[in-house]
Amino acid sequence: MNDITTNLTTDVVQLDLARPDRIGFGEAVLCEPKTVEQIVRALDQARDAGQAMLLTRLQPQQFAALPAEHRTGLEYDPLSRTAFRGQPAPRRACAPIAVVTGGTSDIPVAREAIRSLAFHGYPTSEIYDVGVAGLWRLQRRLDDLARHPVIIAVAGMDAALPTVLAGLVPALVIAVPTSVGYGVAEGGRTALNSLLTSCAPGLVVTNIDNGYGAACAAMRSMR
Amino acid sequence: MNDITTNLTTDVVQLDLARPDRIGFGEAVLCEPKTVEQIVRALDQARDAGQAMLLTRLQPQQFAALPAEHRTGLEYDPLSRTAFRGQPAPRRACAPIAVVTGGTSDIPVAREAIRSLAFHGYPTSEIYDVGVAGLWRLQRRLDDLARHPVIIAVAGMDAALPTVLAGLVPALVIAVPTSVGYGVAEGGRTALNSLLTSCAPGLVVTNIDNGYGAACAAMRSMR
Amino acid sequence: MNDITTNLTTDVVQLDLARPDRIGFGEAVLCEPKTVEQIVRALDQARDAGQAMLLTRLQPQQFAALPAEHRTGLEYDPLSRTAFRGQPAPRRACAPIAVVTGGTSDIPVAREAIRSLAFHGYPTSEIYDVGVAGLWRLQRRLDDLARHPVIIAVAGMDAALPTVLAGLVPALVIAVPTSVGYGVAEGGRTALNSLLTSCAPGLVVTNIDNGYGAACAAMRSMR
Amino acid sequence: MNDITTNLTTDVVQLDLARPDRIGFGEAVLCEPKTVEQIVRALDQARDAGQAMLLTRLQPQQFAALPAEHRTGLEYDPLSRTAFRGQPAPRRACAPIAVVTGGTSDIPVAREAIRSLAFHGYPTSEIYDVGVAGLWRLQRRLDDLARHPVIIAVAGMDAALPTVLAGLVPALVIAVPTSVGYGVAEGGRTALNSLLTSCAPGLVVTNIDNGYGAACAAMRSMR
Amino acid sequence: MNDITTNLTTDVVQLDLARPDRIGFGEAVLCEPKTVEQIVRALDQARDAGQAMLLTRLQPQQFAALPAEHRTGLEYDPLSRTAFRGQPAPRRACAPIAVVTGGTSDIPVAREAIRSLAFHGYPTSEIYDVGVAGLWRLQRRLDDLARHPVIIAVAGMDAALPTVLAGLVPALVIAVPTSVGYGVAEGGRTALNSLLTSCAPGLVVTNIDNGYGAACAAMRSMR
Amino acid sequence: MNDITTNLTTDVVQLDLARPDRIGFGEAVLCEPKTVEQIVRALDQARDAGQAMLLTRLQPQQFAALPAEHRTGLEYDPLSRTAFRGQPAPRRACAPIAVVTGGTSDIPVAREAIRSLAFHGYPTSEIYDVGVAGLWRLQRRLDDLARHPVIIAVAGMDAALPTVLAGLVPALVIAVPTSVGYGVAEGGRTALNSLLTSCAPGLVVTNIDNGYGAACAAMRSMR
Amino acid sequence: MNDITTNLTTDVVQLDLARPDRIGFGEAVLCEPKTVEQIVRALDQARDAGQAMLLTRLQPQQFAALPAEHRTGLEYDPLSRTAFRGQPAPRRACAPIAVVTGGTSDIPVAREAIRSLAFHGYPTSEIYDVGVAGLWRLQRRLDDLARHPVIIAVAGMDAALPTVLAGLVPALVIAVPTSVGYGVAEGGRTALNSLLTSCAPGLVVTNIDNGYGAACAAMRSMR
Amino acid sequence: MNDITTNLTTDVVQLDLARPDRIGFGEAVLCEPKTVEQIVRALDQARDAGQAMLLTRLQPQQFAALPAEHRTGLEYDPLSRTAFRGQPAPRRACAPIAVVTGGTSDIPVAREAIRSLAFHGYPTSEIYDVGVAGLWRLQRRLDDLARHPVIIAVAGMDAALPTVLAGLVPALVIAVPTSVGYGVAEGGRTALNSLLTSCAPGLVVTNIDNGYGAACAAMRSMR
Repeated sequence: MNDITTNLTTDVVQLDLARPDRIGFGEAVLCEPKTVEQIVRALDQARDAGQAMLLTRLQPQQFAALPAEHRTGLEYDPLSRTAFRGQPAPRRACAPIAVVTGGTSDIPVAREAIRSLAFHGYPTSEIYDVGVAGLWRLQRRLDDLARHPVIIAVAGMDAALPTVLAGLVPALVIAVPTSVGYGVAEGGRTALNSLLTSCAPGLVVTNIDNGYGAACAAMRSMR
Repeated sequence: MNDITTNLTTDVVQLDLARPDRIGFGEAVLCEPKTVEQIVRALDQARDAGQAMLLTRLQPQQFAALPAEHRTGLEYDPLSRTAFRGQPAPRRACAPIAVVTGGTSDIPVAREAIRSLAFHGYPTSEIYDVGVAGLWRLQRRLDDLARHPVIIAVAGMDAALPTVLAGLVPALVIAVPTSVGYGVAEGGRTALNSLLTSCAPGLVVTNIDNGYGAACAAMRSMR
Repeated sequence: MNDITTNLTTDVVQLDLARPDRIGFGEAVLCEPKTVEQIVRALDQARDAGQAMLLTRLQPQQFAALPAEHRTGLEYDPLSRTAFRGQPAPRRACAPIAVVTGGTSDIPVAREAIRSLAFHGYPTSEIYDVGVAGLWRLQRRLDDLARHPVIIAVAGMDAALPTVLAGLVPALVIAVPTSVGYGVAEGGRTALNSLLTSCAPGLVVTNIDNGYGAACAAMRSMR
Repeated sequence: MNDITTNLTTDVVQLDLARPDRIGFGEAVLCEPKTVEQIVRALDQARDAGQAMLLTRLQPQQFAALPAEHRTGLEYDPLSRTAFRGQPAPRRACAPIAVVTGGTSDIPVAREAIRSLAFHGYPTSEIYDVGVAGLWRLQRRLDDLARHPVIIAVAGMDAALPTVLAGLVPALVIAVPTSVGYGVAEGGRTALNSLLTSCAPGLVVTNIDNGYGAACAAMRSMR
Repeated sequence: MNDITTNLTTDVVQLDLARPDRIGFGEAVLCEPKTVEQIVRALDQARDAGQAMLLTRLQPQQFAALPAEHRTGLEYDPLSRTAFRGQPAPRRACAPIAVVTGGTSDIPVAREAIRSLAFHGYPTSEIYDVGVAGLWRLQRRLDDLARHPVIIAVAGMDAALPTVLAGLVPALVIAVPTSVGYGVAEGGRTALNSLLTSCAPGLVVTNIDNGYGAACAAMRSMR
Repeated sequence: MNDITTNLTTDVVQLDLARPDRIGFGEAVLCEPKTVEQIVRALDQARDAGQAMLLTRLQPQQFAALPAEHRTGLEYDPLSRTAFRGQPAPRRACAPIAVVTGGTSDIPVAREAIRSLAFHGYPTSEIYDVGVAGLWRLQRRLDDLARHPVIIAVAGMDAALPTVLAGLVPALVIAVPTSVGYGVAEGGRTALNSLLTSCAPGLVVTNIDNGYGAACAAMRSMR
Repeated sequence: MNDITTNLTTDVVQLDLARPDRIGFGEAVLCEPKTVEQIVRALDQARDAGQAMLLTRLQPQQFAALPAEHRTGLEYDPLSRTAFRGQPAPRRACAPIAVVTGGTSDIPVAREAIRSLAFHGYPTSEIYDVGVAGLWRLQRRLDDLARHPVIIAVAGMDAALPTVLAGLVPALVIAVPTSVGYGVAEGGRTALNSLLTSCAPGLVVTNIDNGYGAACAAMRSMR
Repeated sequence: MNDITTNLTTDVVQLDLARPDRIGFGEAVLCEPKTVEQIVRALDQARDAGQAMLLTRLQPQQFAALPAEHRTGLEYDPLSRTAFRGQPAPRRACAPIAVVTGGTSDIPVAREAIRSLAFHGYPTSEIYDVGVAGLWRLQRRLDDLARHPVIIAVAGMDAALPTVLAGLVPALVIAVPTSVGYGVAEGGRTALNSLLTSCAPGLVVTNIDNGYGAACAAMRSMR
């Protein structure tokens, strides 16, 4: 650091440790844009506060670059790129939240939602690869799905699954567009816009690939 | 109609009258892109089925162009551009859903949500013009807001209100971007994108100006 | 005209009168961007050549501004904004082409396709308002649809109908996105992109609202 | 997998094995966004069902990462990034489908179409590098082309070839924009939009670089 | 005007009267975004300086709103929306500049170029409606066109004409995209991008509908 | 208003009357997206609080629709679409702020800045139509301009003026892009992006046409 | 170099060495798009002129590729990617400029501003990670912040911090959007647009990640 | 190649060897999107025809991957990524074409133009780093520049140089936007749009980074 400047902040990372009291769940650390040093500081603050912590979008190369002592303290899942520091919350006695995907390529994002919910103690049901180009795959799951109060529906490309689903079940359907696809898939923008203009009433949407955000919304709705 | 074609559909409007049984609330008619004749047919089908019906985005000039008998059967609100055919559902004994706006210009969209909820019997609380450029306006409402399980937050331009709110209360926050603004407001796209990339966890979003969709999502979450 | 320039073209409209011999159907006149004088000249050329002619996107105000003698020679349909000059081709003895829409607001575009096919003698079947948010509407038409070799599927907003359809029937499915919708519907761009990234195999797509183009493609495939 | 969640799906890949009966050709596996493990599972399901399978957009590094036993069972073409598992369908006795390109850089996409058609038994004709900046190259092929009922026209940059072609021949012309080019070529978006606004009547279009989709549409039209 | 401010500029319009000496032709007044008062001041300055003046994009309603004395001093062409104040330059003894269009709807823009050239004394040749969907229309003009040193090629939609032309003739081809079309024509952006990515070498491009700019470029190249 | 809802806000307009104490200047009312009733309420609140008020983007038709008593209390300027309610602040004894434009079409936006500064008592200098296509117009003003501590530079189209200016003078240069232009001017987005990527160091930028915002920034820098 | 061309410029890099006299601070070298040879030439020109020089966006791999003699003469900071050649200016006796960030991921851009100010002798205050999703972090810094005449506010994603801040303090707030985020964060475009449409009055904005530009604007305002 | 298809084209590369006779200069090979095998075939065709050939956008790694015998036959310039096969045309006795750049980072594109002109025998003048943020750099070159009939002006970021230049000299100014810059520079799109909306009359524009295209246009204008 350059000594001709005055750093008024005692630490460059300021974890929002009071968040669980305010909104019901703690701060997760979005790792992708951070330096390894910044991730280490966040882990240390959580350790010092005696808090468990969820890390999201932790790239394999970032995980590999962590000091061994920090790495061994993490339960890391490379598919969803999430890690748990400390013990997840005990399992809650509430209805499970369904997480469904249109294709197999959407599973990493679905797993980010699953893992985020698991970290906070919420039970989940996983139903994968039920995209509407083969409608029978969804239809044989409908009775199961209709029993869930909240469904996180993850889909890329044209993202037609959440629309069809929201026309068939009464649940709160939280749609997560994914960046799967090429050409005019535009890194998920077409899926996102398709979901926002859905002709099914009451679909709500998160940012592209934001399985964590969908999990948080599900938790907010389950309180 | 051209008689060399075969119209396999008996009626060009096919109301989804079984929707309440499947998903808990009935079909609303999005009027803006329809011809007056199509709106009339939908009203007639609802009448014949003995169902109440909600009409959204019914432009004043469309309302004025309806036959008198159809017009008098509607309770029309020009600010929100919504109309009720028949009796709204009786008021439910559940917690009210809060609807807040960043500015006064966002009120028409907020009123679309309010009216859609009222039509289905859901109680609401309205809190307007609490945008974060004058943070005190929001702060004096926080205790009220923290008691609501669901908040519909309506905001245009930079749409910072839902983010600040979602950091302060545990409710499910359904954000509705509005088309208010000029230049890079881009008819609401900036507000929409700003909400989707919000640093507050668990914000969910609807299409621009879609107060009706936010109301439906709120109803799904209140079941 | 300015006499210091030399106009090498004898007439500013050059109808491609040999097109039927080359590609099997004649030139239609896209009226919307033309002046009334230009439309009149095209009509006169067709008359002089003794040819029937299809006019598309002929706005009501353009039709009204035509000289009476030209107006009375046209069979004009304001819903589809198409007009026939002269006698349509006799009805062909081939399988009908199905034209389906997701919603009632898509019908004007569907009618442009229907009328373009009728003008060239092709039989059609019309099935309207079978969008997938109420899946039962489509399902009860599936057996009918599976018997058609070519289906023109017209849909706006998220345009999920053609995808679901192409997963269920073997026909050539020509999808036409429509400009119906608001906000991120973006005048039909979201429907278009959604169709182009469809997870159903072999969907082909035309420009937004281009019912005429879909009809031409259907005719090319039926030769 | 996290054991606090319940996976209701027995397998994360659900091949749509009944697709040939419904729509006339089987499911292909889009490999690019899948993990190697997911591709292996799909191959195993096809093997267990005794079905041949087409793989598309299989990157060289993905092919190289497959287990040896799976790799040797594939006939892989790195130029088109396609692979065949099992025996292609026997050659059909129908007219060949023409595949033409504007430039040599468009050949990989053309080959994806060729290989997809070959896998399903359809004969093809290849005509490359006939872009309209040197019009004579196309003109000497016109008689050949006019004899094909279906032409897949592959072109990048300004994509003028399919327009010129569709003005000269009566075939169904399925245009495939490619991502060739730089600057405002925008990864194929300019070619795509140029094709969608073509002044030639009845051109239909697929997603950028989607040779497989064009092949499927051609097969649908040839039934 | 508000008297608490100091206007350092003596006149709000500052015509660049020395431009002909610097670059060879005078300043034209782009009228569309100006108030009628501003147009009047520009006309008065030209009158006071004894200079002829070209006005472009002068809307009919602006022309109609001019004071009678200013209106009568103008030679106004509503098709091209151009007006001449004072006497055009005498006709130059140089080769004519060709102006061609793809369709009849592009003629207003072509006429803006023609009139701009005529105002400065340059001879022109006009060739209209030779778009490449009917290639024969262009081919019968090729010998004429090959004799022009500069061609202004005006085209909308997919704008394939200038590309085909530039592959056939040695002239400097200045392409002007037009805003003709609908859907993904995007007000001329697709035509513009298509021209910029043309596979024909050495095509240069102006802004959408900018016939005046093309004329100026042609004049620069003819010096 | 619908009586089944509870309006927690006593008034739908909540003026931020304490803003001058916090940030040094009061709230202005952005009128364009507001209903006439909302503007009236804001005016009444200002009157009740005994405060002067600035109104921006007040369309002529909105002004005309105000009740006579409210209209007569306003000093309205239709060119800049601004109005003053009550007495502007007394003129401050500080250096004037320069406001320059590239063209005459940019003057309405410049006047919005001028009027906003005047309302708060800041002296200004106006220099119009000094765009860099005629560089001499700027050069003869440079000595004047170099004496101003803050310059608001208003320009549309390619917006080259602020860049050239910021390379020549030491002032804080606040650039305001305008929506002047057609085609790829894109309603001011090209001017905006051009300014943001300026090669001149330290240019800062506001939203398109935001003369008021530039005035506020100038006032913040002059404290 | 090709000897059939004539290079009229004696050196391909032309440092603007008189800039400090004109605008108060010297030219910085934007290194990212330059070749190593070009950076070396700029360093040599500065050395020959006896001037200190600031380098921005100097990538680690560029720094590593510099000749040892040039590398050792630089004080390089890899976090902000800035380097100082020669001695920074002595510290000025003026109020410090505050630099605040919404998150820790925004710190590299903040440090570019800090280092640019330090190089020119301006004192600064750093306050990091005070994003508004945890509003208390900002609130406890407000008294500090209100004492600064200029604040550079650096924020990515929805970039709500500068808006909230500008509503609370009277300083000139220069907002710098950052490229932090994913999906619709669009590499910083959403943050940028959100800032430009801010409902807080008088926010000014720089290009994405342009900490150097913000520092220059701050220096211009402190003269 | 798959033997169930029929390749009607004898060779996948079809050089347009008659182009010089038609348009005055030969075909160049755009190498970037081609495979090494395709480049080799093009070189062999040129050799067999006894023609010299220009290669553009030949990446260093492509050049390195060529067979030694082909590589040694090329005169390769890595800065401009161009190569000459065979002897360039003899130098023509005409006025030189000026090539100017705004910054040093634009030089690779300028060199592509220079090399393309040199290959065809056209003399050139190079003037670099004369961007308008330091206007004196351009001004001292104006007399030189005013003597050139054609100027290729290469600039990125805000691309203000060609506008200022075209206001000062009578030459045909062909502007080439470059992809230099970050953030809203958008890979050159801002420079491109800024040039297309230039307020200087008669600027013509090429695709981003298209130095070759500018050279071809210059050659067309010099015939």
